Amino acid sequence: MRSLLFVWAAILLIRAAPAKKLPTPPDIVAAAPASAWKTVPADDLLVMDLADGGRIVIQLAPAFAPVHVGNIKALARGNYWKGATVYRVQDNYVAQWGLNESDKPWPTGVTAKPPAEYTRPFKGLSVKPLGYPDPYAPGTGFWNGWPIAYNAKANWANLAHCYGTVGVGRDLSPDTGTGGELYAVIGNAPRQLDRVIAVVGRVVDGIDHLSSLPRGSEALGFYKDKAQYVPIANIRLASDMPVAERPAYEYLDTQSASFARYLQVRANRHDDFYIRPAGGVDLCNVQVPVRKKS
Amino acid sequence: MRSLLFVWAAILLIRAAPAKKLPTPPDIVAAAPASAWKTVPADDLLVMDLADGGRIVIQLAPAFAPVHVGNIKALARGNYWKGATVYRVQDNYVAQWGLNESDKPWPTGVTAKPPAEYTRPFKGLSVKPLGYPDPYAPGTGFWNGWPIAYNAKANWANLAHCYGTVGVGRDLSPDTGTGGELYAVIGNAPRQLDRVIAVVGRVVDGIDHLSSLPRGSEALGFYKDKAQYVPIANIRLASDMPVAERPAYEYLDTQSASFARYLQVRANRHDDFYIRPAGGVDLCNVQVPVRKKS
Repeated sequence: MRSLLFVWAAILLIRAAPAKKLPTPPDIVAAAPASAWKTVPADDLLVMDLADGGRIVIQLAPAFAPVHVGNIKALARGNYWKGATVYRVQDNYVAQWGLNESDKPWPTGVTAKPPAEYTRPFKGLSVKPLGYPDPYAPGTGFWNGWPIAYNAKANWANLAHCYGTVGVGRDLSPDTGTGGELYAVIGNAPRQLDRVIAVVGRVVDGIDHLSSLPRGSEALGFYKDKAQYVPIANIRLASDMPVAERPAYEYLDTQSASFARYLQVRANRHDDFYIRPAGGVDLCNVQVPVRKKS
Repeated sequence: MRSLLFVWAAILLIRAAPAKKLPTPPDIVAAAPASAWKTVPADDLLVMDLADGGRIVIQLAPAFAPVHVGNIKALARGNYWKGATVYRVQDNYVAQWGLNESDKPWPTGVTAKPPAEYTRPFKGLSVKPLGYPDPYAPGTGFWNGWPIAYNAKANWANLAHCYGTVGVGRDLSPDTGTGGELYAVIGNAPRQLDRVIAVVGRVVDGIDHLSSLPRGSEALGFYKDKAQYVPIANIRLASDMPVAERPAYEYLDTQSASFARYLQVRANRHDDFYIRPAGGVDLCNVQVPVRKKS
């Protein structure tokens, strides 16, 4: 029995809690004081329930794409997505949902042709810099819990396309997408999409309900048959749900000392498993801690 | 009908073939001459067939982890993996397979305690440099079709942990893993694993059979019940399969002019969709083209 346990331990890729060594990122998150956590406003939480019961929760980013996020809120409140499905799942790229080939009219409050909210001004953002080089932008770091890329001199900033990032499907320029068709990144960070598409948020819970879906066999991962479409029961703002039913989330304040330590250790793992600290980390590998509020 | 088609086009995230614009990466791959492609040796192709018929094909990398790769070939030839399963799927990280809690003896030819093949000497490798900064290593680029990170001065190089990279599950140091338990990356490139684990190859086909599996609910993505384990019918080297049944693959020579152009365009997408070329690209977002030989 002992040898069986040993063998089971031997196949663990990473040990969960090394003893008497430097703290791991989860250790630092667990030790962060309550004051280091910030609650996501209920009005910025989009709750998508699949017909099979799987729940995906998205934090919206009105500070970066106010018109598109306004549209998404109007679409949710106007029950636009009744009958929506996940109709495209492309491996190592995105899962996309909405009404697909629909010509349903937009509900009240929707701006049909939003401006190109691909960047916003950098000035005025209090940023925790990543501190390591990035191939896509002169600066990267974190603002209010979000991974961002920026150019201070040219005065632009954008939400980075990381795993879980949610963006707006669009046609060719100058179309920017209205917000009815959304995608979530389910693969390696496609940073080449930064600044060419409107990012409206990120999945904070339940992304496995998207990432584990069968991949579509058609070009770009579209499902071939409508029978493969994954039905969505409803998409609501948490603020429109009965208070007792609302999910709530909090994220580690990226200006906190806890986050600074977390970032440092993400870049310099040095416990029993990580025998060689990397001395650096990629923006999208930092993964700002987000947790459900109980 | 025309408007329906228009709306359908409108939800495409990326148009497949823009006209009268700069070539896209797929355009360059399609135009590459036969001389720019190199065949993967059949002795370096590990063919894993799931019981449900899904096939995953892995290219092994004997130049980087010769003892571990030798072990994997001996394990395949010795039918060690009879009864193996995929027993761990952790979202945005890895899928792992093997015999799990087994104390089955190693077949002939297996080195039970291989050396730490986490890096190899850089000297002697003809590398196509990426040309953009990387947070994990002073140098990155491509050697013989593989994405690598390196330090020329310190004379080390390693296969980078990108989407699809296959490595050897191990216990804590100094254990390096024997090769019986393998994982494939199914999420954002976990480059923090570079140089702390033996990388033995990459999935060149069928990774969706791993990436779309249900995620395990236990710590580190282990499945809770053995009933959830995904059975593997067999794992063989292509060179041990009947010639008529062997799959064959070729990759774009990373020293070719076609690859240089491909790399340039991956870093500077500029077609109808990509209105702002990034001017850079991450090592793991280049994705060396690999295709099935017919």
